[in-house]
Amino acid sequence: MDHRKLYVDTLIGQIRALDQFGTWVNKSDEDLLIEKYVKSKEDLKNIPIIADIDEMQIQDIRLIYQAVALAFEKITGVMCSVVMEMSHEGFGRVVVYTGNIVLCTKSFKDAHRFSFRELDKLKDEGEKLLTKACDIYEKYKNL
Amino acid sequence: MDHRKLYVDTLIGQIRALDQFGTWVNKSDEDLLIEKYVKSKEDLKNIPIIADIDEMQIQDIRLIYQAVALAFEKITGVMCSVVMEMSHEGFGRVVVYTGNIVLCTKSFKDAHRFSFRELDKLKDEGEKLLTKACDIYEKYKNL
Repeated sequence: MDHRKLYVDTLIGQIRALDQFGTWVNKSDEDLLIEKYVKSKEDLKNIPIIADIDEMQIQDIRLIYQAVALAFEKITGVMCSVVMEMSHEGFGRVVVYTGNIVLCTKSFKDAHRFSFRELDKLKDEGEKLLTKACDIYEKYKNL
Repeated sequence: MDHRKLYVDTLIGQIRALDQFGTWVNKSDEDLLIEKYVKSKEDLKNIPIIADIDEMQIQDIRLIYQAVALAFEKITGVMCSVVMEMSHEGFGRVVVYTGNIVLCTKSFKDAHRFSFRELDKLKDEGEKLLTKACDIYEKYKNL
């Protein structure tokens, strides 16, 4: 199965599912991902190094890992859970796990600056996380 | 090593470390644990089924699992992490993990009512969680 496509489709699905008021109906998938996750070096210069993170941004970061979980479920049929903890200062940690196996984990500093330089980097990252999650699962599942 | 004693000592240590203002200096360890974690059926009747959970209570629940993590570190010398997520309504989840191994996990409903009927039950639970964490680690560590 094509992990890259599956990941991106799942992420888009998650984002659109949260679009209660249809605000993003006329936006293309690419534009939506870029708006949420892609920031150029220029953009980053305008974001302070130390700042509070808002609920919306925490949710957007969560979706990245929730999409890993959901895509993993689609591939393996195995349920998994996402737990994320984030302080108001943007320090935090997320873990995706199933049973006794950690499939994916990431810690954050400066989460309010969380972003990718270009869209392909986001797709690369999603593909990498998903493939790694599947590999870890294969390795540990029979114990 | 005596997991029960180690767990309780670690939990007490964690609680006392947070006693910035010396409020609990004159309280015995047992009294402190009872005050924080033991609620009789009578006590529970006076706590509403649906209510908000405050930061202090979230912290107290976190300590239960942080003590598992810390006691595990004392035994094995292996670092582990605690990630906890809790909504204001008292729904949440906590996971203690090291590397790719989940050592301990628990999900909450009604976390504002989180308590043990008697002190021994708390000690039992701590001992059980710690022993289980060590067993899981032994099983998975060589992969």
